[in-house]
Amino acid sequence: MKILCNPKELIYSTSIVQKAVSSKTTLPILKGIFLEAFDQNLRLVTTDMELGIDHVMEANIIEEGSAVVDARLFSEIIRKLPDSEVEISLKDNSELLIKCASVKFNILSYNPSEFPELPKIKEEQMYEIPQELFKNMIRQTVFATAEDETRPILTGVLMEIEKDMLNMVALDGYRVALRKGRIKSELNNKVVIPGKTLNEINHIMSGEEDEKVQISFTNNHALFIINNTKLISRLLEGEFINYNQVIPKEFSSRVKVRTVQLLDSIERASLLGREGRNNLVKFTFADKKMIINSNSKLGNVHEEIEIEYEGEELQIAFNSKYFIDALRVVNDDFIYLELTTALSPGIIKPASNDNIIYLILPVRLASY
Amino acid sequence: MKILCNPKELIYSTSIVQKAVSSKTTLPILKGIFLEAFDQNLRLVTTDMELGIDHVMEANIIEEGSAVVDARLFSEIIRKLPDSEVEISLKDNSELLIKCASVKFNILSYNPSEFPELPKIKEEQMYEIPQELFKNMIRQTVFATAEDETRPILTGVLMEIEKDMLNMVALDGYRVALRKGRIKSELNNKVVIPGKTLNEINHIMSGEEDEKVQISFTNNHALFIINNTKLISRLLEGEFINYNQVIPKEFSSRVKVRTVQLLDSIERASLLGREGRNNLVKFTFADKKMIINSNSKLGNVHEEIEIEYEGEELQIAFNSKYFIDALRVVNDDFIYLELTTALSPGIIKPASNDNIIYLILPVRLASY
Repeated sequence: MKILCNPKELIYSTSIVQKAVSSKTTLPILKGIFLEAFDQNLRLVTTDMELGIDHVMEANIIEEGSAVVDARLFSEIIRKLPDSEVEISLKDNSELLIKCASVKFNILSYNPSEFPELPKIKEEQMYEIPQELFKNMIRQTVFATAEDETRPILTGVLMEIEKDMLNMVALDGYRVALRKGRIKSELNNKVVIPGKTLNEINHIMSGEEDEKVQISFTNNHALFIINNTKLISRLLEGEFINYNQVIPKEFSSRVKVRTVQLLDSIERASLLGREGRNNLVKFTFADKKMIINSNSKLGNVHEEIEIEYEGEELQIAFNSKYFIDALRVVNDDFIYLELTTALSPGIIKPASNDNIIYLILPVRLASY
Repeated sequence: MKILCNPKELIYSTSIVQKAVSSKTTLPILKGIFLEAFDQNLRLVTTDMELGIDHVMEANIIEEGSAVVDARLFSEIIRKLPDSEVEISLKDNSELLIKCASVKFNILSYNPSEFPELPKIKEEQMYEIPQELFKNMIRQTVFATAEDETRPILTGVLMEIEKDMLNMVALDGYRVALRKGRIKSELNNKVVIPGKTLNEINHIMSGEEDEKVQISFTNNHALFIINNTKLISRLLEGEFINYNQVIPKEFSSRVKVRTVQLLDSIERASLLGREGRNNLVKFTFADKKMIINSNSKLGNVHEEIEIEYEGEELQIAFNSKYFIDALRVVNDDFIYLELTTALSPGIIKPASNDNIIYLILPVRLASY
């Protein structure tokens, strides 16, 4: 193996594949990047056995071949090289020589035949989604996945494709995030993608207007193609909760409020609520105004904001974190908040379109 | 106590005094900010019993008085308030009411009479130092203080004033940093200031060209005045090492090298050396070139740079961290590196002036 390449492109490509490098593993080779020189390309591959990334960049190949080097060390070295053409070659099948101007690094290469192969997925029956839309859909759902692993399926996001419509759904037992997006598709499908995979895809997508991401599924894996990068992710197994049954269709009170104003108020209230277990914030709705308050042993806060309100007077309490998470990504100047009783879920919807629904369970107040 | 004030000024003032708030203390009141309304001013005071900060800002005082509130909570609250005049008042001597637009916070106030008073220091016999100069002098010495507390005096920086000359010196047993600066003074003095104090002063000083810092000393304390802010720091007790005896006056070899080039090379070499205990980097000097190399079980690096060299061929090894720390702040395009043998200290000096001397002890190589 011997190649010449541009240092900036090498840094960029390494930064992309680094996201799938195992941070905690007992298998040292999974801390590595598999490098393969072929035709006029350099392929970089990493995997933590859940997510694999395969990225191809142009390079001047003098001799084909492959090597596996420690990802962190390789990345640190190439970032510190002078801005000049880099020569990479394999010595005695066990050392990678990196030359740049008058700098010469020799680093250990693992045996590339021991590096696990990524699952092969046929690139047919691909869905195509604009990157900008997919970025929004990820950002507006992934925060609601469960953090603890006791029910692994809840650490993922449901992708449900039906009749030109993609529904993405995350829920953790206390809240639901549902985002609908219109796409072109002739196939129906229903898979659960790990939240971590979607976060990495979100980072890799440029989100530029004309850019697309191609997606394909097998029974166990999903393949995402973003330009020269392929991500292959394991799917989560198990039955996803029937979210349609959980989301109420009716409500008895409806609030219209300026998103930023409500977010600011809840963020203030959360400064005090934080000490307790539930980040409790209490809302009281009456004609044209909403009172937000929170108490803890540190003190209390009371605030009034203007709203449009249809319904009876109502007092209800929530975990402020769940409201903050949703309001930060809802992307509309105004939201509707739909309520029924102090013990039934609250529904947040953007006021100017119906592609997002957030459900949040209330917290039962001690005095009830 | 009742005051009206501008939220931005309150945020700025709080951020200044927060630097002396105790992070780990068994005395809860030391996590607080003492607030005192007097004349047309609001005074904010904090202390961790080593360093105290006293800052005064303008405010509209409706009723004089004082309170002590949790610094972190107070700071978070005022940062989240709407951009509108803030009213602060004390209720029942135990609660501070913070009002801003339609927001009302009530937070616990400690008893202000229990807040420790800062040591009183007469504001006479003051030295005056331009902030820009003092910032540089701190930055160019404080990194060389000892981190571990086994010899407390080494966690501070010696300030030695003699005949219009200020010498600042830090040393940790492996290296010495000496920075000389010309100031106007009629008094001689010699004190050791905790490194932490100097770091906080450095953050508070704007460093603008015409701004000055006033300094005064007692037997146990130093007072620094920066505009409306006073910092009162405990001095470190004990005898500082006679640094003049440590710094060799003669040398047998001298290198002239471009600072950035040497820094880049050592940073690259340190990527491999890091695994070992000493961050070892090896220099070999010969006519007009310097070879930098480093080895570890991860691999090795070899690099050559052009230098001007007077002396015999010499090989010497250092802890790369000490070189990197010094070269990052030396502030000159070229440095001189003065050497004698592989076992005697290396001296770094800026090439174009003689106000800085760094001494670094070499590491004995196993093969010697």
